Amino acid sequence: MTDRGPRNTEIVLTLPPWLRALALQERRVFQSAEFRMRFAIELARQNVEQHTGGPFGAAVFEADSGRLVSVGVNLVEASNCSMAHAEMIAIALAQQAVGYYDLGAAGVYELATSTEPCAMCLGAIPWSGVRRVVCAAHGKDAAAIGFDEGAKPADWTGELQKRGIEVVRDVLGDEARAVLQQYAKSGGLIYNPGRGS
Amino acid sequence: MTDRGPRNTEIVLTLPPWLRALALQERRVFQSAEFRMRFAIELARQNVEQHTGGPFGAAVFEADSGRLVSVGVNLVEASNCSMAHAEMIAIALAQQAVGYYDLGAAGVYELATSTEPCAMCLGAIPWSGVRRVVCAAHGKDAAAIGFDEGAKPADWTGELQKRGIEVVRDVLGDEARAVLQQYAKSGGLIYNPGRGS
Repeated sequence: MTDRGPRNTEIVLTLPPWLRALALQERRVFQSAEFRMRFAIELARQNVEQHTGGPFGAAVFEADSGRLVSVGVNLVEASNCSMAHAEMIAIALAQQAVGYYDLGAAGVYELATSTEPCAMCLGAIPWSGVRRVVCAAHGKDAAAIGFDEGAKPADWTGELQKRGIEVVRDVLGDEARAVLQQYAKSGGLIYNPGRGS
Repeated sequence: MTDRGPRNTEIVLTLPPWLRALALQERRVFQSAEFRMRFAIELARQNVEQHTGGPFGAAVFEADSGRLVSVGVNLVEASNCSMAHAEMIAIALAQQAVGYYDLGAAGVYELATSTEPCAMCLGAIPWSGVRRVVCAAHGKDAAAIGFDEGAKPADWTGELQKRGIEVVRDVLGDEARAVLQQYAKSGGLIYNPGRGS
């Protein structure tokens, strides 16, 4: 017991330098789902190779033009923040970019993610206002290397579709799975929370 | 189509001034679930009265000592960030306070939230490392004033318990419901995302 009150009143999540540089320099337009996904997987791979976090990458695009709006990688370890998943980072940065908490009010935006969303990111997607989610590796691929993806509704794609959000699965799945396996083989941290075990 | 790349590389979520002041000054120790919940509900009420966001408040405590570790309120509108729910803010600030992304490795922590977690916050709880979640109003109470809480597993408390997280429901539920209703009556924004409707 102590009389010390909470001192933390601000959350700051910063992209690692390599990704900041990449984001600021990237000028390509990504016309197809495959091009968008290859970019998201490349972010995941770089995040592993640069040792800046878990093997997950994501990006938000203008669905029609293919313009890159934001990027995200897993920053849980580096930022000491369990909500800093790739999808969350990409969504939050996209909302900053458009200056509004609801991307759906600003246009038609697509989230590409190198692995299907965990329960948290799945829950975040309807709030975000994205209209399409494109996924590569399956949730079970993340589970296979030890991540507890949480309890998702059995028909999670249907739950998104009910809310007007299109879901496209298994785009370049093998490439994304290769990144997960590379991470596991290299001894990357599987950071499920401690539960007093 | 444009050649403009993403310029946003940092996410900053800041407590509103009233809450920052409150957090820095608070020195009480909260011994019971009711004391902790009354505080979380008071944050929700203040957030409505100060017009700084939605009618939701949360706080993280050391489970044994009752020391307040962090606070959170809904900051979605003010921060242009759909993930800025009260629970997410409180969890992220608690992790900053202990300097680690897994509260479960740092001690035994309890999350008190004025309304049961939406699908996103529910998914965030296992990753956070909290060991106990105490809730006041039900998810259906938030739905009753128009918030889409998302698709939660039917047995969401069981899913948390499976992961070693205790759930206590309906602590001061009437007081929390009163804040939800006060918000709805005062014309507070119900900010479900636009879906091109």
